[in-house]
Order: sequence, then C-alpha cells, then structure tokens
Amino acid sequence: MDKVVIVGVGLIGGSFALALKKAGAVRHIVGMGRSPEVMARALALGIVDSATGSPQDAMRGADLVLLAAPVAQTGPILARLAPYLEEGTVITDAGSTKSDVVAAARAALGERVGQFVPGHPIAGRESNGPDAALAELYVGKKTVLTPLPENPDDMVERVAASWRACGAVIHKLSAHEHDKVFAAVSHLPHLLAYALVDDIASKPHAGLLFQYAASGFRDFTRIAGSSPEMWRDISLANRDALLGELDAYLAQLTSMRAMLAASDGAALERVYANAQRARHAWISAIENARDPDSGK
Amino acid sequence: MDKVVIVGVGLIGGSFALALKKAGAVRHIVGMGRSPEVMARALALGIVDSATGSPQDAMRGADLVLLAAPVAQTGPILARLAPYLEEGTVITDAGSTKSDVVAAARAALGERVGQFVPGHPIAGRESNGPDAALAELYVGKKTVLTPLPENPDDMVERVAASWRACGAVIHKLSAHEHDKVFAAVSHLPHLLAYALVDDIASKPHAGLLFQYAASGFRDFTRIAGSSPEMWRDISLANRDALLGELDAYLAQLTSMRAMLAASDGAALERVYANAQRARHAWISAIENARDPDSGK
Repeated sequence: MDKVVIVGVGLIGGSFALALKKAGAVRHIVGMGRSPEVMARALALGIVDSATGSPQDAMRGADLVLLAAPVAQTGPILARLAPYLEEGTVITDAGSTKSDVVAAARAALGERVGQFVPGHPIAGRESNGPDAALAELYVGKKTVLTPLPENPDDMVERVAASWRACGAVIHKLSAHEHDKVFAAVSHLPHLLAYALVDDIASKPHAGLLFQYAASGFRDFTRIAGSSPEMWRDISLANRDALLGELDAYLAQLTSMRAMLAASDGAALERVYANAQRARHAWISAIENARDPDSGK
Repeated sequence: MDKVVIVGVGLIGGSFALALKKAGAVRHIVGMGRSPEVMARALALGIVDSATGSPQDAMRGADLVLLAAPVAQTGPILARLAPYLEEGTVITDAGSTKSDVVAAARAALGERVGQFVPGHPIAGRESNGPDAALAELYVGKKTVLTPLPENPDDMVERVAASWRACGAVIHKLSAHEHDKVFAAVSHLPHLLAYALVDDIASKPHAGLLFQYAASGFRDFTRIAGSSPEMWRDISLANRDALLGELDAYLAQLTSMRAMLAASDGAALERVYANAQRARHAWISAIENARDPDSGK
C-alpha cells in the first residue's frame, strides 16, 4: 500500500503501524489523534511517518484507514472523515464490539458504508499508549472481521491482507455472532472480575482480606486492572448480549448456591469437574495450535 | 528437631520436608501415606528418609507431625495417630479450612487437643505430587496459624519456627476469622471460575466460544483447573462462610445488572474504577512488600 492512516496511535494502532512497516507492506503512515503529545511521541518512536490534525490531508490518496480510538468515538470520527473519503479508500476499525460500530458507520457513511470493513484484533497488553506498541503484537493472534453485505470483496481482502502482513490469522463472523461470542468469553469475565474486587474493597475489613489474597486471586482479577472508561463503553455498546450472558451466569450461580446450601457435594463436584475438564481441553487445543508438531 | 512425620508427601508435605532439610532443621523425616507408589517416589527423591505404614512406628519419638492429606481425611488420620501420641509431640496441618479441622481434632484427640496447632500455608503450584515439591515453595509466603486456647505456647512456637525455617512468614488468626477471610479471597473466586467455565462449556455453541477465548479468559479461569475433589471438600467444609460471600456477590451482580439494563454508564464506571483502584493499590502493596527499598 502507498498510504495508511491510523486514527489513534496507541497500543493497538501503533502496533499495527509497526507491523506493517516491518513487513514492508506500506510506504507512508499518517497518524491522527486528539493528543498532540501522543502524536509527537508516535513520530519520535518512528511509528508514523507524519502526523496531521486535518482529515482532508489525512484522507488524500489513502489506501486504508484504521480507527483505533475508543469505540464510542467511531461515529464522530467517521463523520469528520466522510467528506474526504475517496472511492479507492477502505476504512476498518479495531473495536471490541461490532454491532454498535456497524450502526455508527451506517449513520456516518450512508450509502458509502461498503467502504467500511469492521474488524477486531484479539490481542492486547496491560500497558497502553505508543510506547507500548510492538511490531509483534499480532503475530499468531486472531483478527475477526465482520464484513457487511455492502463490502466489495477486494476491500475486505485489502483489510485481511493488512492484518495477515502483521502476522494475524483472519476469522470471519457476523457482527451479531461476534458480539455474542465476546460477551461470553471476554465482556462477562471483565464484569465479574470488577464485581469481585469492588465487592471485597467495599467490605469494612477489606484491608484484612487483601492481606491474604494470593496468586489465584491475582490471576482471577487481572482483567479488573483494565481501563474503567473503556469497559464502561464496551458494556454499554454490547449491553443486550452482555445482559443475556450475565443472566445465564446468575442462573448458574443460583443453582450452585442451592447445591452448596444442601451440602450436595456430588452435584458441586460434577460442576467443578466438568469445568476442569473443559478448561483442560481448551488449553490443550491452544497448545497444539501453537506447536502443531507436539501432538504427533 | 530430631524427628518429623509427614502424612501425605505431595506438593505441600514434600515441600515442607525439603525446606526443613535444606535449613538443617531436622535430623530424620518419616513419610506416611495411602499410596505405596507415592511413598516410593518420595523416598527416591530424597524428600523423606524413611516411609512407614505403621502409625506406632511413625509416632515414636516424633517432635512434629504435619498432616498434608486432603482436609476431609483429618479426622480419620488423627484417630489412627491418637493412640500413639506422646506428650512431647505437636501435630499441625496444612488444610485450606480451619473450623472443620479444629472440630475434627477435638473429636479425635479429646483432652489432648492442645497438642494440635492448626495451620494453613498460603502457597501452591498448578502441579501436584512429590515430583512437584520444591524446597523454596514457602519462601516469603504466609503461613496462617489458628492456635487453640488449649495450645501451650511452646508447641505453637515449635510449629511457627518450623515454618519460619522453610522461609514462611507467620500470621495468626482465629479459625473463624481465617475461614471468613479465605471464603472471600480464595474459595469464592474458585467457585466463580468453575461456574463460568461450566456455564460456557454447557452452551450448544461452546466450541465456537472457546475458539475466541483469549488471555483474559485464561487468567480468570486458571483456578478452574484445580482439583474438583479438593474444592468440593473445601466448599463443603467452609459452607457457611462461603454461602455468606456468595450471597454478597450475587447481590453485587444483581445491582450491576440493574445498572447495565438501565444503561447507567456512570454507575458502572464507578464500580469498575473502584475495583481498578483497589486492585492497583493491592498490587503496589505486594510489590513494595517484596522489595522494601523500591518505595524509598
């Protein structure tokens, strides 16, 4: 590609830029963002080749635009870019929810929504900002695309090829499937971890409790160290799917509470053993996928 | 000490033995256990100096006996050892619950219960058995003792000194306090992690869900890889405290469900932010405790 635009040059956008450069997949990368300090840092680190505050300059001759700003910004950013969107440009994003992003893109782009290919790279780190960006962040990780009926094949392929150049493996789901899946395996666990830490921190003897929390608690609650603003936005954006998963989980806990109250050890053990077995199978599948020869 | 007896030479008992030997704190260690294979392995690894199936042989002249078998075995094991319990011997344990262990000890030892000092080392690994034992397992970790009113000071001190020789830091709580604390920071998180994995594994599209589960899910559910039998026993042994913590958590989730259903982003963000802040403070406190100079 000749020109790529990254809107939001933090961990996600910055790592995409570094990986494309490393792969030799792009000639020039333009950064856009709200914070002059972040843009200056991204320039200094060599993540972007130039920075601009002008959507008109940014969009001129762009092959691909990646939105890597908070999901709630998708609509306003697309509205600013839309007047300068050329026919040959494809826009994609890196948001953790997809139905709301699609709705925002339809509202902002109207009949040109076919130029927007929604995406979600499944990768991250605990640190943020351009200094956290890594050229290797996406190697071996999945990127889920949720193409629209309006997307021309060649635009979907351009986005897919960019992520493949970063080392990612492309999966495709509908936006609805995507949001249901991530409500279960990501958004609900985040809510549950935040809930536990807040529950404990709000008790009068919280200090005593934290004193005895150990490595199991640390791992269980690691995701409660994530950005509250970002997870507020994700929770609201994927509210309906998340409510569905939360209700299923509440029913599960209520059933286990009854087993415990009845001292029904056999029933509890069945739940625990089924969970242990399923988790073990999952971990084995991951390890075999990483090292395909290990199972031979 | 001249002679220490370890009942159950797996990860916990074996690591205690290796650490005492490394510290030069004991002359002879005797292993007892149900499995001849495990005992042979513990002998071969040099964890114990001898192994016996005879409680009479084991207890003769013993300074200290550590019970490191599953908690539900505490009563039967003490009943077998009691006839041979000499006046100078102290018995301790490594169980994850304490009120039930104290009750079992009172039933088995009667008026000699003063010779039983309940304990709980806060350390572990994902692997089990004598091969997993490490001389360094307890270094810098807490061991909680929950002494009884009947315990003579010198017997409590003998147990405390043994754990200190292993590198552990001694804390003292009542058995009731201990069980309430660990219901909140350990037993509840285990139940919650098992609940989530079983919930997801029971869905018709479980395969699709596990395919997209990533590192956040992996850490959140790591403790669902623990032994179902062990956690069934712990759940039942600490049932009342665990029910109390589970009810508080269910109330917290129900309240957060209402925030989500009302799209009350500000309320959700307050919970998330409070949790993030509390977890960050806890992690900082741990890191400062590990490296006391780092805060200067």
